[in-house]
Amino acid sequence: MSFEINFEPIGRRYKSERPITLLDAARRSGIGIRTVCGGKQTCGKCRVKLLGEHPAPLAEGERKHLSSREIEEGYRLACAVTVTNHVDVYIPPSSLTEKQKLGIMGQESYIEVDPLIKKLKVSLEEATLDDVRSDERRLKEFLLAEYGLGGISADMEILKALTPALRHNRWKVDIALRDKEIVFVGPPSGGETAHGVSVDLGTTKIALYLVDLVSGETIDADGFINPQIAYGEDVMSRIMSAMTDPQNALRMQEEVVSTLNKSIEDLCHRNDLSPEEILEMTLVGNTAMHHLFLGFPTRQLALSPFVPVTDEPIDIKARDLGLKISPGAYVHVLPVIAGFVGADHVAMLLASGIVDQGEKAMGIDIGTNTEIALVIDDKIVSCSTASGPAFEGAHIRYGMRAAAGAIERVTIDPQTYEVKVMTIEDKPPVGICGSGVLDAIAEMLKTGVLDERGKLVREIPGVRRDKESGIYEFILVLQDRTEIEEDIVITQKDVVAIQLAKGAIRAGMNILLDQMKIGPEELEKVIIAGAFGLYIDPLNAIEIGMFPQLPLDRFLQVGNAAGVGAKMALISRKHRQKAVEIARRTNYLELTVVPDFAGKFAYAMQF
Amino acid sequence: MSFEINFEPIGRRYKSERPITLLDAARRSGIGIRTVCGGKQTCGKCRVKLLGEHPAPLAEGERKHLSSREIEEGYRLACAVTVTNHVDVYIPPSSLTEKQKLGIMGQESYIEVDPLIKKLKVSLEEATLDDVRSDERRLKEFLLAEYGLGGISADMEILKALTPALRHNRWKVDIALRDKEIVFVGPPSGGETAHGVSVDLGTTKIALYLVDLVSGETIDADGFINPQIAYGEDVMSRIMSAMTDPQNALRMQEEVVSTLNKSIEDLCHRNDLSPEEILEMTLVGNTAMHHLFLGFPTRQLALSPFVPVTDEPIDIKARDLGLKISPGAYVHVLPVIAGFVGADHVAMLLASGIVDQGEKAMGIDIGTNTEIALVIDDKIVSCSTASGPAFEGAHIRYGMRAAAGAIERVTIDPQTYEVKVMTIEDKPPVGICGSGVLDAIAEMLKTGVLDERGKLVREIPGVRRDKESGIYEFILVLQDRTEIEEDIVITQKDVVAIQLAKGAIRAGMNILLDQMKIGPEELEKVIIAGAFGLYIDPLNAIEIGMFPQLPLDRFLQVGNAAGVGAKMALISRKHRQKAVEIARRTNYLELTVVPDFAGKFAYAMQF
Repeated sequence: MSFEINFEPIGRRYKSERPITLLDAARRSGIGIRTVCGGKQTCGKCRVKLLGEHPAPLAEGERKHLSSREIEEGYRLACAVTVTNHVDVYIPPSSLTEKQKLGIMGQESYIEVDPLIKKLKVSLEEATLDDVRSDERRLKEFLLAEYGLGGISADMEILKALTPALRHNRWKVDIALRDKEIVFVGPPSGGETAHGVSVDLGTTKIALYLVDLVSGETIDADGFINPQIAYGEDVMSRIMSAMTDPQNALRMQEEVVSTLNKSIEDLCHRNDLSPEEILEMTLVGNTAMHHLFLGFPTRQLALSPFVPVTDEPIDIKARDLGLKISPGAYVHVLPVIAGFVGADHVAMLLASGIVDQGEKAMGIDIGTNTEIALVIDDKIVSCSTASGPAFEGAHIRYGMRAAAGAIERVTIDPQTYEVKVMTIEDKPPVGICGSGVLDAIAEMLKTGVLDERGKLVREIPGVRRDKESGIYEFILVLQDRTEIEEDIVITQKDVVAIQLAKGAIRAGMNILLDQMKIGPEELEKVIIAGAFGLYIDPLNAIEIGMFPQLPLDRFLQVGNAAGVGAKMALISRKHRQKAVEIARRTNYLELTVVPDFAGKFAYAMQF
Repeated sequence: MSFEINFEPIGRRYKSERPITLLDAARRSGIGIRTVCGGKQTCGKCRVKLLGEHPAPLAEGERKHLSSREIEEGYRLACAVTVTNHVDVYIPPSSLTEKQKLGIMGQESYIEVDPLIKKLKVSLEEATLDDVRSDERRLKEFLLAEYGLGGISADMEILKALTPALRHNRWKVDIALRDKEIVFVGPPSGGETAHGVSVDLGTTKIALYLVDLVSGETIDADGFINPQIAYGEDVMSRIMSAMTDPQNALRMQEEVVSTLNKSIEDLCHRNDLSPEEILEMTLVGNTAMHHLFLGFPTRQLALSPFVPVTDEPIDIKARDLGLKISPGAYVHVLPVIAGFVGADHVAMLLASGIVDQGEKAMGIDIGTNTEIALVIDDKIVSCSTASGPAFEGAHIRYGMRAAAGAIERVTIDPQTYEVKVMTIEDKPPVGICGSGVLDAIAEMLKTGVLDERGKLVREIPGVRRDKESGIYEFILVLQDRTEIEEDIVITQKDVVAIQLAKGAIRAGMNILLDQMKIGPEELEKVIIAGAFGLYIDPLNAIEIGMFPQLPLDRFLQVGNAAGVGAKMALISRKHRQKAVEIARRTNYLELTVVPDFAGKFAYAMQF
């Protein structure tokens, strides 16, 4: 009887037939878990969180090293837990020896810095019995006289803070205006500084950027795994989790907020700032992440016709969401377009600069759902296609996320069928990530390991039939050269998963092109966004028919464009406005209502 | 050794020389405390709250009838507690056999009904795969097409509620607009209804009015004692309490909010409404009540130069204050003018209709602080004067608030000096309320019991010297005709307290008249607002020199004008705007900076 240990958020599964400690299973899966004592329950470094029932009573060492709160939340020491059944394990970043590649730094282009937030110096006359103007009036009259600013309002929390601040600082304070609203009051500072944070809230990853609002520069960045992963790996399963128990929706919101708070605290701490100095936040995310973050209902996003609550931008006080930044600060959440085309797509279109450039351009953000936009003249049309998680390593036999030891490049000798692989950080192979799978399939096609219908050719050396499942597979790396105790292979099922994924993407592209009545060859630019998009080889993507055959210089891999878009909306009023305009102007095309969608999808699946 | 039991909020003190139960002391003071068992600790009706230390251990009957929470909060059974030392006792309204006169119904004049809140019927096309507009967009496009309404925004809580409301009600809902903001969504109703609540938040009393926003009619009203009274009887002592422990400020806010919630629940319950149907609230109060309610700092209100945080109107989501009305509803808090001239004064000026009427008019709101406004042409000048609590029955030997058994009218036979008294509800006399004291002093002056300097004339029958204190006093009612076991008298100290009170008011009036350079005889109208003002006899007020000698028809006693003003701001945009304008246009005059204020005050104290 065999069972599997599923390591989250890395997405690596370890199959065992014997009882094994979590630490050993992780090691054999090539996952670097921190340990000083080497598994003797004495260092307490190998904390992991069990996502189900506790399989065994707490060991002595666990009682010593884990707080009662940790124990309550399901934390254990990986070295102390021996498992005999299937178990899901979450490894917190703090227990990993190396950080995962999170692709949080997108390309940034030059933009004019003109944030909504402006810091101002204020110096008031002291109140006396002859001049008993209220504190707010005194401040407003100063702003009008000194800076010519009229029609100013003040946040309630600012009004509460203003009175003591004026009296403690001899009537001299710094304030921050957000357009016409006073959102900050504090003691007078030496220089003019103002800071903000922009957030790309992904289903799997959360990226935060600490930004200097005066210079427009990104000072620091941080990346986290979305803690909602415990409620489901993809958008659909999280919505289902919220539908099953409405408390789950609240919990998911709280967990994201507390992760953001923690990360902001870290970012601020290492840059000598206090979170109270963060005066504005912008956030992008797909529609489900957007809705969960804002506390909107999500049920209708899972049911046809998949309608979002709103497609307007949202400005909400950070404190109303539990975010611990400046008490008067807002979060600006960029608008979504449709149930499956979110604010991250809007941000990608903003950052890619393909709107209003006079080019025929396409923007693609590859993920579990892949959003595609086609821009021609002043028209923008977008769709979302269910490409599945294959490119993120899921549903692939040896698939994993882009962590150390993941195979990311594959070449096959067309004569000898000898396979060469490259892994992330040159570690011994433990699995294969999305771009590696794509490479492998492309090479297998080029060298004839796969035929044009996508079948593994039995006669090729390295192709074999698995005795147990009866499924054919192609060996990439033999057991003795891997870090795991198995051969790493691409199975016939893996090939079908990739066909489904690339077929969905290509069908979406084709339908948009049909809709706007242009041929693929007319595309002048294809923007490939997202962490995965940054690592793929466009030539191989063309080889497997995922992308149309275009000169390579028309493809531009821009990395985390959504994060860049979020930052642009943070430091530039013009771009914030532009994002709203892009969302308004984008026509959403629901693929499932396109005539003969199924036929077009089937066609696009072929190699 | 004698000691006093102080009963709040009635303001009645009972002096005893022997150990006595609280129930007996209350009875002897003429206070009707509920009891079924007659003091046997078996009915549990006579709950009272000790405002200091517990003087005795809990009795069996108390353990049985009081919840652990009540015990924690200091509740006891009045029949079970025998006291031997000074103690302050709060009697909750639920333990009183009769309601106090609260004067919650002010005069109402006719005004045009044009509230900020409008209910609208909405009927949307159902979302389909061919029409996947977001719920918010669908609603907004309907509002534009059907009602010609553009530029509409929606509250976050409304966005959260909109999606399920549309789907549960087959895309037909009612919404409420507050100007351009959607603040309510609910199932479609039969008729057009909308409700609001206006609140007059007094230091001692809170009055609530349930208002039909369509007809403008007041449907119901409720009055409560301000629970903050446990933190101090007057504004200053509450601010001191907040300064001593910042938690007290929070607690005072919470207690007012929870009293309002309870009262709104009652009002709604007895009018077949749910609190969620209350779509708007307006509130007035003096500056300290205003600041405590909004969570503003109050320390600076107690220290010269007594500056308020703001003098702007405040619109804040009711939910942000913990008020349980419609989730999207706002509270509109009318603006204050200065540290001692609050939103209640603004509301009084609004309701009295003396602004912009082309008359020379004065508005007076008599209380512990008396606010006075003088209106001439387009000029308004206001002041606040520390008249003290004498008119509310405090600092008067047998003073009490206007409850059953309080002497409210006094006449003295000029020949025989025989005294006749009238009491509230014709109950046997237990004390004397503010208007009764004023009557008594006026009669004593007229008949020569008092000389012009304010001295009791020893030779008059009924004037005697108290053996213990050596202070002279005038007997109003002898022991055998009172409900208490003592004679009810006016002492020389009481006379001085009234001289101080009326002197403060008259000095304020004189200084405003001087300021605007008119004589008192030029006043065409004197509005006397407030519950106390409703009960006084203006002739007697003139007799003691509190008011100038004017024809009686120039005095208008309008009762709770502040409450009426709050309601006007609830049902009329124009009047809400007018209140802001009144607050802006009113010049605050700080009396203490007027040259020779002390001399003017001393002069005004004379009879």
